[in-house]
Amino acid sequence: MTELLSDASRTEALAPLLATGWAETEGGTAISKRFTFVNFIEAFGFMTRVALIAEKMDHHPEWTNVYRSVEVILSTHDAGGLTEKDIKLARKMDKVAADD
Amino acid sequence: MTELLSDASRTEALAPLLATGWAETEGGTAISKRFTFVNFIEAFGFMTRVALIAEKMDHHPEWTNVYRSVEVILSTHDAGGLTEKDIKLARKMDKVAADD
Repeated sequence: MTELLSDASRTEALAPLLATGWAETEGGTAISKRFTFVNFIEAFGFMTRVALIAEKMDHHPEWTNVYRSVEVILSTHDAGGLTEKDIKLARKMDKVAADD
Repeated sequence: MTELLSDASRTEALAPLLATGWAETEGGTAISKRFTFVNFIEAFGFMTRVALIAEKMDHHPEWTNVYRSVEVILSTHDAGGLTEKDIKLARKMDKVAADD
């Protein structure tokens, strides 16, 4: 099982993500971000690319799509909070969104 | 603009959908259903097929995916409630889910 991030590694890992629009949520056990695209095609294209990455990582987001927006929540439920997997997936999502 | 369903056509259109697990929500201005699949691949495969249909119809769902479940809310916001577009998309979603 992936372990919860220690306080020090958590602070270090979160800083750059908070700077790109991620926020701590659910009492600090998750991070969330709303991605907004120009239309549904771009939004669902983002989701498709992320879906392949998530499945490969065996770590899946909770996400809601409404037309051109995608609201994402990341957490590692087995561990009860944030782990390296969430940080990694968040970074990859930012990268995919930036490629659009 | 697509018009709201009349009371009579709404009742007739909703009956078979309520029988497959759809429910009226948001004060009757929307319908929702939770689709559950065997895993993320099947759940996201469903979403991908529905995404193509929704884009072609120019009518998009509000939907939330958590691993193998997909919670869908359909409404026609321009009309302020349920229209024939929602009924059509709901039927297509049931059909896509049944094909899996």
